Amino acid sequence: MRLTEPDIQLNAQKKLRHLLTLEGLKEHQLTEILDLAETFFDPATGDLKKVPLLRGKTIMNVFFEPSTRTRTTFEIAEKRLSADVVNLNIATSATKKGESLLDTLWNLQAMGADMFVIRHADSGAAHFFARHVAPHVHVLNAGDGRHAHPSQALLDMFTIRKHKGDIYDLKVAIVGDILHSRVARSQIQALSILGAREIRVIGPRTLMPSHPEALGVHVYHDMDRGLEDVDVVIMLRLQNERMSGARLPSEKEFFRLYGLTEKRLARAKPDAIVMHPGPINRGVEIDSAVADGPRSVILDQVTNGIAVRMAIMAVIFSNAAQLQQQEREA
Amino acid sequence: MRLTEPDIQLNAQKKLRHLLTLEGLKEHQLTEILDLAETFFDPATGDLKKVPLLRGKTIMNVFFEPSTRTRTTFEIAEKRLSADVVNLNIATSATKKGESLLDTLWNLQAMGADMFVIRHADSGAAHFFARHVAPHVHVLNAGDGRHAHPSQALLDMFTIRKHKGDIYDLKVAIVGDILHSRVARSQIQALSILGAREIRVIGPRTLMPSHPEALGVHVYHDMDRGLEDVDVVIMLRLQNERMSGARLPSEKEFFRLYGLTEKRLARAKPDAIVMHPGPINRGVEIDSAVADGPRSVILDQVTNGIAVRMAIMAVIFSNAAQLQQQEREA
Amino acid sequence: MRLTEPDIQLNAQKKLRHLLTLEGLKEHQLTEILDLAETFFDPATGDLKKVPLLRGKTIMNVFFEPSTRTRTTFEIAEKRLSADVVNLNIATSATKKGESLLDTLWNLQAMGADMFVIRHADSGAAHFFARHVAPHVHVLNAGDGRHAHPSQALLDMFTIRKHKGDIYDLKVAIVGDILHSRVARSQIQALSILGAREIRVIGPRTLMPSHPEALGVHVYHDMDRGLEDVDVVIMLRLQNERMSGARLPSEKEFFRLYGLTEKRLARAKPDAIVMHPGPINRGVEIDSAVADGPRSVILDQVTNGIAVRMAIMAVIFSNAAQLQQQEREA
Repeated sequence: MRLTEPDIQLNAQKKLRHLLTLEGLKEHQLTEILDLAETFFDPATGDLKKVPLLRGKTIMNVFFEPSTRTRTTFEIAEKRLSADVVNLNIATSATKKGESLLDTLWNLQAMGADMFVIRHADSGAAHFFARHVAPHVHVLNAGDGRHAHPSQALLDMFTIRKHKGDIYDLKVAIVGDILHSRVARSQIQALSILGAREIRVIGPRTLMPSHPEALGVHVYHDMDRGLEDVDVVIMLRLQNERMSGARLPSEKEFFRLYGLTEKRLARAKPDAIVMHPGPINRGVEIDSAVADGPRSVILDQVTNGIAVRMAIMAVIFSNAAQLQQQEREA
Repeated sequence: MRLTEPDIQLNAQKKLRHLLTLEGLKEHQLTEILDLAETFFDPATGDLKKVPLLRGKTIMNVFFEPSTRTRTTFEIAEKRLSADVVNLNIATSATKKGESLLDTLWNLQAMGADMFVIRHADSGAAHFFARHVAPHVHVLNAGDGRHAHPSQALLDMFTIRKHKGDIYDLKVAIVGDILHSRVARSQIQALSILGAREIRVIGPRTLMPSHPEALGVHVYHDMDRGLEDVDVVIMLRLQNERMSGARLPSEKEFFRLYGLTEKRLARAKPDAIVMHPGPINRGVEIDSAVADGPRSVILDQVTNGIAVRMAIMAVIFSNAAQLQQQEREA
Repeated sequence: MRLTEPDIQLNAQKKLRHLLTLEGLKEHQLTEILDLAETFFDPATGDLKKVPLLRGKTIMNVFFEPSTRTRTTFEIAEKRLSADVVNLNIATSATKKGESLLDTLWNLQAMGADMFVIRHADSGAAHFFARHVAPHVHVLNAGDGRHAHPSQALLDMFTIRKHKGDIYDLKVAIVGDILHSRVARSQIQALSILGAREIRVIGPRTLMPSHPEALGVHVYHDMDRGLEDVDVVIMLRLQNERMSGARLPSEKEFFRLYGLTEKRLARAKPDAIVMHPGPINRGVEIDSAVADGPRSVILDQVTNGIAVRMAIMAVIFSNAAQLQQQEREA
C-alpha cells in the first residue's frame, strides 16, 4: 500500500481536507493549528472551552485497534466542539460478520458521517479511508500501524512551543524504539517542518530504522552522549506488543541502557523538558522521579491533546466551508 | 408466545404507539412515516437535518443480540432528533447477574426511558416489552428472532418509492433465505400493505417457509425465472448463524444457484434496482459487479434508514402528544 | 488503606466537595441533597426534568468493576443535567497496558474531567482518587469494595422519606449479608445521621460483622423476631461473588431462613414498605409476591436514584462555585 501521497490530504484550495500524516505539510499549516489550539483555553480559568463550532456534525471514532486513551481524548475534543459523537469499536463487531474494510467505510459514510477518526493496526488504513470517502467527508488518522500519528506529534509541538518558545532554536532528542514508533515518525516530520535546530534519535541498533540519516536525524546509541545539551527529551513507550520477532533487550537491560533517570537527565540543558506520549512504563523507559519531577510536562501533553485535536477538526471543517463558499461564488 | 396481536401497538386513538411489526397496519400509517422521513433531508445539501423534536426524551437502545450496524443507525437517528441516548448491551451485563427480562425492563423503565429500541434473538421479545411497559413508554422492534424487522422494511419501502415511484405498480422479487429472515417477513407485509402488484420469493426449498402461498407471494425455486421482468430485486443476507440444522447448500453452490450476477440481473426490467439489507456477502449472495454497479441502491438504503428511523420515532411521540392533548380536553 | 478520613470530602467552607462516604456527614448535608432531588421531578407529569445546570462540565464514569445498572443511572442523571458524559470501562483497557491507578487518574484529569464517578472492587479506591485529584475536580463514590455506596443509601433515604415521612420516627430492618454489603454500611450511616428510631440488622452469624453493636444497630438472627413492628424492610442482594471462602447457606436454605415472604412481612407494621437495591434474586432473598406486591417500592427506588444522583452532583458543583466566589471576593 502506498503511503506517501501526501497531496491526498489537501483540497482544491491546497488546504487541509484530511489529516493522515505530517509529511509534506508546510510550516504555516502546522502553526495555524497550533495557534487555533491556544484559543480554546479559557484565559481566566485555563479550562478548555465548550464551543458550538461543529454543532450538527457527526463524527465517528472508528477504532479497529482498541485504545481507550486516544479514543477518549478525541471524544472529549468532539464534545467540546458540540459535535454528535459515535464510537465504533470494529474489532468486536462488523468484522465478525466478515465485512470488508471498504464496505464498512461505505456503510458508515452512508449513515451520515462528516468525519472519521481512524485507528488501525495496519499502516495506510487512514490513507485507504481518505482515498475512498465522499468529497464532503474528512478523515483523521489516530494512529495507523507503524506509519503515523499526526495528532500526537502536533500536540507535542504545541507543548514544546508553550514551554520552550520557538522550535527552530531547539535541540530535541527522541529516545527508545524508533523503528516501530509511528509517534517518532510523526514527531520527526513535525520537528523538521518547524525547523528544529537538531533532531537526535537515541536507541539500540535493533530498534533503529535501517537508514535513519535519510530522516534528517542524528543517531546515537549511547544515551549519555545523545542527551548532551538538548532542550527537549521525548521518551517513547516500549511497545512489547509491536516488537515480536526482534532480538530485544530485557526490560531491565533496556532501562539500564536507555531508561531516563535524574542522573542521565543532568546531561541535558538545565531547563530541558521531558515528554512522553503515555501511558508510561515506570522503571522501564522512565524513572518515576523524572516522570513526576518538575521538568516533566507529560500530563500537560494530555491536556494540550484535547485542544490540538479540537483545532485540527476546526481547521478542517473551516477549510471545507471556505471551499464550498468559493465554489458557490464561482 | 403469541406474536400476532398487532393491536397492541396502537393507542386509544388507533394510532401507532409502538412499532413491533408491520402486520395489521394500514397503508396511511406507513405512508405517513415515509412522507415525514422525506422532510428530514435538507433540500439544499441532501444531508440529514438535526432537529430538536425529541429534546429532553430518553431513548434506550437495548441490544440483547449484538449489532453495531443497526444500533449505530438508531443512535444517529436519535441524536439527529436531539434525544438523550443510552446504549445498553445486555448480553454482557445484567444477564450475568441472572436478572429476568421483565426485571430488566422494569428497571430501565424506572430509570426514565421514554422509548426502548429492542434487538433480541428471540421472536416476540419486542411484543413482550410492549405488553409490559408503562402507558407513556414506547417500544421499537429493531429485530426479534425470525419474526420481524419493521424499520428495515420501512426504509426499504422508502428506497423503492424514491427510485421507482408508487409501489402498487411494481413487481418485486425477494431472493435467498426466506425461511429464517425477519427482514423478508416484514418486507412482504410492507409490500402487501402498499399494494405491490406482485411479490415473488426466490430460493431453495430448504430455505422456504412451508406454506409461502399463505403470505400472498409467488414462489420460485429457479432464479432466472423468478427475476423475469421484475422492477425491484431484494437480495437477503445468507445468515449461516441462524441456519443450524438445516440441510444447506455450500456458499459456492448457493452462489451458483441464487447469487445475483449481472447476467442474471439482465432478466429483470432494464431499470430494475437492486437492494440488500447489508452487510453483504460478496460472492455468496451477490456479485461485486452488481453490488457496486449503477443499479445498486444498497448504500442509499443505509442513508434512508436514518431518516426513516427518525420518522418512526417522531410519529410515535407525536401520536402520544395528540392523545395526551385529547385526554386533557376530555 | 485508611478509609476513615471523612473530612477529605469537605472543602474549605466545610461543604461537600466529594461524596465518598456518608460517615461524618451532618443531617443538614443529607437533607439538602434530598430536598434538591425533589425539585428535579416535574410536578405536572412526575417525569425527571432536563436542566442546564452542568452544561460545559465533563463527567467521567470510571468503572473498574462492571455495572451496567449503576453506570446507566449515573449516565442518565448526568445527561439530565446537560453535562458532557464520558464512560470508561477500565477493566478492559488501560490496565491491559499495565498503567497504575494513579497514572490513570492523572491522565483522565489532564483530559479535563470536572468530576469522576468511580466504581471499584477495592475498598478505598474513591478515597484514593479524592486524595490525589486537583483542587477543582470532584469524586463520587459509586461503590468501592465492601466499604461504601453513598448514593445508593441517599436514594434509599429519599424513598423512605417520600413514603413514610420523617425518618426519626421509624424502625428500619436491613436483612441479609450485612458483612459484605457496602450498601448496608452506607444505609446504617444514613439512618443514624437522620436519627432513625431503631436500626435492626437481620442475618446469619456468618454474614454479620464481628461487632455489629459498634454500628449502633440491633442484631437479630431470627427473621420473624427482627421484622416485628418495623416500618421499613430493606432486603439486601445475596452476592455470591463477594462471599468466597465463607461458610455459606445454600440459596434454598437462605430463603427458608431469611427470604422475605408475605407471611413473614405480616410481622412488620401493616403499612411497612419493602426495599431492595436491585437487581433482585427472586426466590433467594425475596419472594416474587412481595417484590411485585403493593408494599414494594423497589422500582420507585430506581427512579429516585436518578433524581438523587442529579442532586448530589448539583450540590457539589454549587458548593464549588460558592467557594470560588468567596475566594474571588477575599
